[in-house]
Amino acid sequence: MKEVPASHAYRLLEPGPIVMVSTTAKGLSNVMTMGFHMMIQHEPPLIGCVIGPWDHSHQALRQTGECVIAVPGLDLAETVVDVGNCSGQQVDKFERFGLRLRPARDVSAPLLDDCLANIECRVVDTRLSDPYNLFILEATRVWINESRKERRTLHHRGGGCFTIDGGTLDLGERMVKWRHLP
Amino acid sequence: MKEVPASHAYRLLEPGPIVMVSTTAKGLSNVMTMGFHMMIQHEPPLIGCVIGPWDHSHQALRQTGECVIAVPGLDLAETVVDVGNCSGQQVDKFERFGLRLRPARDVSAPLLDDCLANIECRVVDTRLSDPYNLFILEATRVWINESRKERRTLHHRGGGCFTIDGGTLDLGERMVKWRHLP
Repeated sequence: MKEVPASHAYRLLEPGPIVMVSTTAKGLSNVMTMGFHMMIQHEPPLIGCVIGPWDHSHQALRQTGECVIAVPGLDLAETVVDVGNCSGQQVDKFERFGLRLRPARDVSAPLLDDCLANIECRVVDTRLSDPYNLFILEATRVWINESRKERRTLHHRGGGCFTIDGGTLDLGERMVKWRHLP
Repeated sequence: MKEVPASHAYRLLEPGPIVMVSTTAKGLSNVMTMGFHMMIQHEPPLIGCVIGPWDHSHQALRQTGECVIAVPGLDLAETVVDVGNCSGQQVDKFERFGLRLRPARDVSAPLLDDCLANIECRVVDTRLSDPYNLFILEATRVWINESRKERRTLHHRGGGCFTIDGGTLDLGERMVKWRHLP
């Protein structure tokens, strides 16, 4: 996987794809599916995400303060839904779904080799974690898997229904106010 | 416009479309473009969004605690970018871009008649507004404009480049864990 500046995290997350999140605590890794996330700041790159106590990953995130956010392509659609519909408390999801792992550089959570991109993250603010299960993360490293042929992402409309990426529209010449972004 | 339960807000925002935000303070309305937002909770529907002091709407949101989040379709793409690249301090954007307004029910900010959907919102938590310009909103009403023919939304990849909605993929039959959602 190719590393790009962490400040590029917004290019992956601002479009709002469904993502997977990996954690590792006490030597055990887990992965979940997540649809409630956002960019909060371009630089340093801050991400907001909701991971609740109903998620087995919640405790690992609390304990370690580390996770990896991975962006899956359309080819992983069924896995993405199935990962979100079973619990790491009962099953080793990596084994069940044949997800290949790769060690991250800065965090204990693994990178997901089959995804388009992986973002290594550290929790930097938990002030809204009790009331809303909202964690503020800083993206420390971003990895792009350029070998994946299927690069369309999925956007969750609820109930397991997704919009698939279609074409692109480049209106960059109209962006007169925001040219300073990384 | 047709009203649907406020708890349907996640169906509009979880897919991560670029949105527009309207505010009204001291009798003056304004509109901005926003890419940093997320669902935080299904019910009651809570939304997180970043609106910074660099946005003219920031003061209005602080003063009134009210806004409308509107979801534009592909037909408004150039307007969406242009609205995000000028300031309400200098220009009446509704007039410049010919955006039609309609009064909201609960909030002073107007609905945008040309958008696919409008979400009336109230600020419910500002604890992270100082450090991150992050506002927690509650969606109080959701309006769908069923008369719009172009229903594809836009997802901002940064720099004025967007992914356009393509097809849909319904994997609802695999959602065994989340059938209780509204």
